[in-house]
Amino acid sequence: MRSRHVVLARRPEGAPVADDFRVETRDLPALSEGRLLVEVLYASANPGSRNRLGGDASYARGMQLGETMEGPAVGRVAESRNPAFKPGDLLSGPFGWAEHVQISGRGTRRIPASTPSLSAWAGILTIPGLTGYFGLRDVGLAKAGETVLISSAAGPVGATAGQVAKLMGCRVVGIASGEERRSWLREEAGFDAVIERRGADTVEAMAERIGHVAPDGVDVYFDNVGGIILDAAIACMRPKGRIVVSGQIADYNADPSSRYGTRRVYEFIGKRLRMEGLIVFDYADRYDEATDAMTGWIAEGKLKFREHVIVGLDGLAELFCAQLRGEIFGRPLARLHA
Amino acid sequence: MRSRHVVLARRPEGAPVADDFRVETRDLPALSEGRLLVEVLYASANPGSRNRLGGDASYARGMQLGETMEGPAVGRVAESRNPAFKPGDLLSGPFGWAEHVQISGRGTRRIPASTPSLSAWAGILTIPGLTGYFGLRDVGLAKAGETVLISSAAGPVGATAGQVAKLMGCRVVGIASGEERRSWLREEAGFDAVIERRGADTVEAMAERIGHVAPDGVDVYFDNVGGIILDAAIACMRPKGRIVVSGQIADYNADPSSRYGTRRVYEFIGKRLRMEGLIVFDYADRYDEATDAMTGWIAEGKLKFREHVIVGLDGLAELFCAQLRGEIFGRPLARLHA
Repeated sequence: MRSRHVVLARRPEGAPVADDFRVETRDLPALSEGRLLVEVLYASANPGSRNRLGGDASYARGMQLGETMEGPAVGRVAESRNPAFKPGDLLSGPFGWAEHVQISGRGTRRIPASTPSLSAWAGILTIPGLTGYFGLRDVGLAKAGETVLISSAAGPVGATAGQVAKLMGCRVVGIASGEERRSWLREEAGFDAVIERRGADTVEAMAERIGHVAPDGVDVYFDNVGGIILDAAIACMRPKGRIVVSGQIADYNADPSSRYGTRRVYEFIGKRLRMEGLIVFDYADRYDEATDAMTGWIAEGKLKFREHVIVGLDGLAELFCAQLRGEIFGRPLARLHA
Repeated sequence: MRSRHVVLARRPEGAPVADDFRVETRDLPALSEGRLLVEVLYASANPGSRNRLGGDASYARGMQLGETMEGPAVGRVAESRNPAFKPGDLLSGPFGWAEHVQISGRGTRRIPASTPSLSAWAGILTIPGLTGYFGLRDVGLAKAGETVLISSAAGPVGATAGQVAKLMGCRVVGIASGEERRSWLREEAGFDAVIERRGADTVEAMAERIGHVAPDGVDVYFDNVGGIILDAAIACMRPKGRIVVSGQIADYNADPSSRYGTRRVYEFIGKRLRMEGLIVFDYADRYDEATDAMTGWIAEGKLKFREHVIVGLDGLAELFCAQLRGEIFGRPLARLHA
């Protein structure tokens, strides 16, 4: 049988563009003993994949040219030569940008038939939501009554972190671009306040906006973007504040020497700040804890999420690039076999 | 009676210079009930005082113009109207740059007559050594077998942190300027390797030097300086590495917008680094633990320290400024009444 895949065609120079990828049609061999044929139902674009395109050193190994683009996905077992799985089983796994994959089944998670959302298993129940959950709780050590600030708050990581913080009894301030995202965060996700990102292009301007809605300061800053917002947050942090480094989108595309980082390391002394990075894979043995909690909240309507769904693989590369440019509101997903 | 004091004469513009201070002679009033007259034996210059000269926001309140310059000191009770103290008692306390002070006795620590070093109570048994001790142990969480990197390693903070790390079973690499400091660190303080600071003026050049003596990477970086050395250390850190932000001398004098900070926040994600600032006053209820341990090590010859001692107050301002310029090897002390 044949399957269409999106592969890395060349290494991006600067920000990725759609032409860095291409769609290929492959002949899949007959299924080997012990393996599964999975029909992908939802493929997703994960901004963290940006780190793997360059071929330079990063925490995940770099992707090879011609390799199927990675990404969490939801699939259904179409054919099984592994007795642990049967046709119709629903799986969440790193199937990537492909219509069909042949896999061993290792590294997949089973999706309960009763799940309140199938697509969430290619979205907030995977890396982004797990990052929000563990980052906020285990790295940020947020406590009830504290003020939590979240950048890129309308993205799946930030929106999950913020809603988990609300469920923990924190006051939650988000930063997002545009009225659509901001009103969704306030009205759907229940954030206490949301700051407009646009138009605050200096540390001082952003710090003023933060100070306006968090006059007593910030206890936990969940950083999805880096750049000047990080410095504005540091300027607004309370003593013993914690910074969760979840993403640094502002610096991913920059030449190393022109990355911004933070100018405000000196403030770490006076305020006794702590900044710590997070890779969600370190929490793999606790994914079920997080998934059980999050699916419960989804079913109860306490954890909202946005998706940006296209049909078919062909637009996924452009959707990924647009996501990195901040143009997409919601988890970018491609629905296949719909 | 009369006492000479060194006071802050004007706010420094950029790096402090000796003319930012002046010596004043004051008439001390008759001693009030409940107070002590202390004859200062050792006054010290503490680089951390730099933060308090500017009058801008910092963790300690800013100094007033005309105020006696602060600094840990050792004194002897010359006259007492407080029954808890008697003439001849030796005290460690924040007496500042003065020949005599009248105090209540609060905030002083008693120096045992058996102490192996009197001057150490104005030096490494005060802020610098306590910062090294608690920073390395409680913030850096150094463990036996780990590699610890220390900048400004020949200073009292760094030298203490490094020797405490050695006593804990770590491998210790220092960074220092000049053959005199480097050979002292290797031969007296027992560091495993010492890198020359001078001549490595880029992140890459310093990272290469670190990599040469710590090819398996750094677990704990004890940062007394900031600037490019911080980025070089980050480049060399192992996963789950910890950065102790103890000082940022490279950035104290800089205009906020031209401070360097770090460009490498993005590496915090992949390596799950943690960076945390330290103010030693947070550990005030554990000073005795540290002092008991350190005086024991001093008596056993396992904790070495360098002092740069001048006689009389008059040269102390210049010594302080030279210390900030990195020109002084050892704790800057003025011996009085000698």
